[in-house]
Amino acid sequence: MDLTSAIIALAVALVMGIATIGPALGQGTAAAKALEGMSRQPEMSGELRTTLIIAMAFMEALTIYGLLIAFLLLGKMG
Amino acid sequence: MDLTSAIIALAVALVMGIATIGPALGQGTAAAKALEGMSRQPEMSGELRTTLIIAMAFMEALTIYGLLIAFLLLGKMG
Amino acid sequence: MDLTSAIIALAVALVMGIATIGPALGQGTAAAKALEGMSRQPEMSGELRTTLIIAMAFMEALTIYGLLIAFLLLGKMG
Amino acid sequence: MDLTSAIIALAVALVMGIATIGPALGQGTAAAKALEGMSRQPEMSGELRTTLIIAMAFMEALTIYGLLIAFLLLGKMG
Amino acid sequence: MDLTSAIIALAVALVMGIATIGPALGQGTAAAKALEGMSRQPEMSGELRTTLIIAMAFMEALTIYGLLIAFLLLGKMG
Amino acid sequence: MDLTSAIIALAVALVMGIATIGPALGQGTAAAKALEGMSRQPEMSGELRTTLIIAMAFMEALTIYGLLIAFLLLGKMG
Amino acid sequence: MDLTSAIIALAVALVMGIATIGPALGQGTAAAKALEGMSRQPEMSGELRTTLIIAMAFMEALTIYGLLIAFLLLGKMG
Amino acid sequence: MDLTSAIIALAVALVMGIATIGPALGQGTAAAKALEGMSRQPEMSGELRTTLIIAMAFMEALTIYGLLIAFLLLGKMG
Amino acid sequence: MDLTSAIIALAVALVMGIATIGPALGQGTAAAKALEGMSRQPEMSGELRTTLIIAMAFMEALTIYGLLIAFLLLGKMG
Amino acid sequence: MDLTSAIIALAVALVMGIATIGPALGQGTAAAKALEGMSRQPEMSGELRTTLIIAMAFMEALTIYGLLIAFLLLGKMG
Amino acid sequence: MDLTSAIIALAVALVMGIATIGPALGQGTAAAKALEGMSRQPEMSGELRTTLIIAMAFMEALTIYGLLIAFLLLGKMG
Amino acid sequence: MDLTSAIIALAVALVMGIATIGPALGQGTAAAKALEGMSRQPEMSGELRTTLIIAMAFMEALTIYGLLIAFLLLGKMG
Amino acid sequence: MDLTSAIIALAVALVMGIATIGPALGQGTAAAKALEGMSRQPEMSGELRTTLIIAMAFMEALTIYGLLIAFLLLGKMG
Amino acid sequence: MDLTSAIIALAVALVMGIATIGPALGQGTAAAKALEGMSRQPEMSGELRTTLIIAMAFMEALTIYGLLIAFLLLGKMG
Repeated sequence: MDLTSAIIALAVALVMGIATIGPALGQGTAAAKALEGMSRQPEMSGELRTTLIIAMAFMEALTIYGLLIAFLLLGKMG
Repeated sequence: MDLTSAIIALAVALVMGIATIGPALGQGTAAAKALEGMSRQPEMSGELRTTLIIAMAFMEALTIYGLLIAFLLLGKMG
Repeated sequence: MDLTSAIIALAVALVMGIATIGPALGQGTAAAKALEGMSRQPEMSGELRTTLIIAMAFMEALTIYGLLIAFLLLGKMG
Repeated sequence: MDLTSAIIALAVALVMGIATIGPALGQGTAAAKALEGMSRQPEMSGELRTTLIIAMAFMEALTIYGLLIAFLLLGKMG
Repeated sequence: MDLTSAIIALAVALVMGIATIGPALGQGTAAAKALEGMSRQPEMSGELRTTLIIAMAFMEALTIYGLLIAFLLLGKMG
Repeated sequence: MDLTSAIIALAVALVMGIATIGPALGQGTAAAKALEGMSRQPEMSGELRTTLIIAMAFMEALTIYGLLIAFLLLGKMG
Repeated sequence: MDLTSAIIALAVALVMGIATIGPALGQGTAAAKALEGMSRQPEMSGELRTTLIIAMAFMEALTIYGLLIAFLLLGKMG
Repeated sequence: MDLTSAIIALAVALVMGIATIGPALGQGTAAAKALEGMSRQPEMSGELRTTLIIAMAFMEALTIYGLLIAFLLLGKMG
Repeated sequence: MDLTSAIIALAVALVMGIATIGPALGQGTAAAKALEGMSRQPEMSGELRTTLIIAMAFMEALTIYGLLIAFLLLGKMG
Repeated sequence: MDLTSAIIALAVALVMGIATIGPALGQGTAAAKALEGMSRQPEMSGELRTTLIIAMAFMEALTIYGLLIAFLLLGKMG
Repeated sequence: MDLTSAIIALAVALVMGIATIGPALGQGTAAAKALEGMSRQPEMSGELRTTLIIAMAFMEALTIYGLLIAFLLLGKMG
Repeated sequence: MDLTSAIIALAVALVMGIATIGPALGQGTAAAKALEGMSRQPEMSGELRTTLIIAMAFMEALTIYGLLIAFLLLGKMG
Repeated sequence: MDLTSAIIALAVALVMGIATIGPALGQGTAAAKALEGMSRQPEMSGELRTTLIIAMAFMEALTIYGLLIAFLLLGKMG
Repeated sequence: MDLTSAIIALAVALVMGIATIGPALGQGTAAAKALEGMSRQPEMSGELRTTLIIAMAFMEALTIYGLLIAFLLLGKMG
């Protein structure tokens, strides 16, 4: 293994690491409000959980883009 | 693979990583308020979910721009 | 590819990455308040959504300027 | 292309990237309050939207100054 | 062991370390609201705990992606 | 072009970029409160907008100083 | 001992150190709300404590992943 | 032009850039409260605007000191 | 003593130092809420103190992991 | 001009730039509360403005110390 | 004394310095709430002070771990 | 002038610049509350202003210590 | 004096400087709440002041540990 | 003067500068609450001012430790 691979490894780590911060915080904020809403309006539980999962999927997608880039870079490490 | 490719790999990682932070936090904030609104005004659920998805698409677009640049740079790594 | 191209790649990544943070957070804040307003005043939904989209377009424009600069720099990488 | 051009490219990226953060956050804060105000005082919608657009133009101008400097620097990259 | 392995070790540490920050904070925020909701609406305990675990699984997944990348990079250290 | 010009280009970028952050955030805060005030006291709209524009001009001036320095430095790049 | 081992030691320290920040803050937030809930609804104490321990286990797991990576890297220091 | 001039250019950029952040944020905070006060006590408008302008002048002065130093340093670039 | 030992010493300091930040802040938050709860519901004192100590033990454990790694690294300094 | 002068120029920029941040933020906070107080107790306007100016003078003095040091350092640049 | 000792000295300083930040902030938060509780429920003073001292001892322990590591490293400076 | 003097100039700038941040923010916070108190309890104006000036003197002293060190270091620049 | 002593001096400065931040902020928070409590429950003044001094002593101890390490390192500068 | 003295000068500046931040912020927070308390309970003014001065002395002491270390290091500059 050469130095180039090592730097690409750093790039892989960087993209995967950073790409988890935002979505996780965003999902936490959304989930918190969904849970708060459920305890206030129990009869809305189903509706809220559906919307929460849609919103979380949007945010999970952002990390998946990062994961995709990480795999493409890993493939270039050879 | 040469050193130039390694630096471009870092650039790819940088743009993809950073481009997920803002949109994820923004989507989280918007989703949180939409979920809060739904539990307060159950009859507005449909309207709120539509507006939330429009807003999330705007923000998702920002990450997509980053993904686009990441792919263009990956293509230059050869 | 030479070292100059690699540094320009870093510049491209920098401008595109950073240019998504502010607008995304700003759009999230605006969307959150629009959704909150809708759940309080359902009859204002149309008006609020229109104003939200105008405001989001202003902020989206800021990222587009960054994208424009990123493309101009990519063109110089040759 | 020489190293000087590469450093100027970094400068272009720096000025354009940073110049989007503040205005975007400022526009987001202003838009949020305008939307909140509209849902409280529906009959003020026109007035609020006009003032919001004036305020956003002031902030958009700050990014335009950054864009102007970015173009002037790009012209010097040759 | 060579220097390349050492840099990959840094990459492994970076991705694993950073990938725990966001999800942990997000899970903490969600759990806090679930616990608050339970004490307000005791009869919703089951529903809230189920939703909390779904949300936590989404966020745990983000760290698992980081762990996956960390193992793939460890395998490249040889 | 020589290395000196490149460093001056970085200086130009630095001053223009940083000089937009504070004023934009300040203008956003002021505009937000003016818009909030308008929706509370509609009959004060004119007065508030005048004062807002005076305050924004003060803050815009700070960025203009930065722009002035940026042009003076650009002139020295030759 | 060689320089490679020293850099791996830094990596071990990095992953273990950073991996404690997020979970600890998350656990603190969750525990705070559980304790607040207990003092409001004394009869929910058992339920809240069970849910708190489930949530804390999820977050403790994130640090354990970091600890696992730290041990694997320590094993490579030889 | 020599390297010394380039470093002085960086110094000029640094002082002018940083010197706009604090005053702009401070002026924004003050202006926000003045505008809020005006909408609560319309008959105090004149008094509030006078005091706001005095306070803004104090803060504008801080940036002017930075501008003064920037000009003195520019003069030394020759 | 050689340079390798010095770098390992830095690693030991890094892991021990950082590993105290999160748990301490988390324990502070939890203890604050337990104390607040006690003053509101004096009859829950025993229950709250028990739960607080369980929660603090979870967080103390995170620092102990850091201490463990610090001792293992100290042993490698020789 | 020599390199020493260039470094002193950086020092001058550093001290003047940083010395404006704190006082400006402090003056903004104080002015904001004075303006809020005036709109609540119009008959206290004179008293509040006097105290505000005393407080602002204390904070302005801190920046003046920085300006003094900046001039003394400028004098040493020769 | 050699360079290795100097780097270990930096390590000692790092661990001791950082290890005071978290516990101090945590103790401050806990003490603040205990004092607030005492002024609300004077008859709980004894109970609150006992719990506060237990909590502070937990946090003080975190700094003591740092102090322990600092002494072990000092011993290695020779 | 030699390089040593230049580094001492940086030290002078560092100590004077940083030493203004904390006291200015602290004075701003204290002054803000004094002004708020005056508008609530006009008859306490004298008492509050006296206490504010005592508190500000304590904080001003901290910057004076920094100024003292700055002058002692300036004297060593020779 | 040699370079080693200079680096140890940096270590001394680092430990002493950082070790004052946390305890000072913690003491400020605790003192603020004690003073607030006194003005609400004048008859608890003695009790609150005693508890405040105990809490401040705990926090002062953290800085004293830093001071101790600083003196031990100063002794090694010779 | 030699380079060693210059680095010690940096250390002196570092310790004195950083040691003013925390205490100043802490004193500001404490003073703010004392002033607020005085305006609420005028008859407690004496008691509050005494406690404020005790608390400020504790925090002032932290900066004095930094000043002491700064003088000891200045003495070593020779």
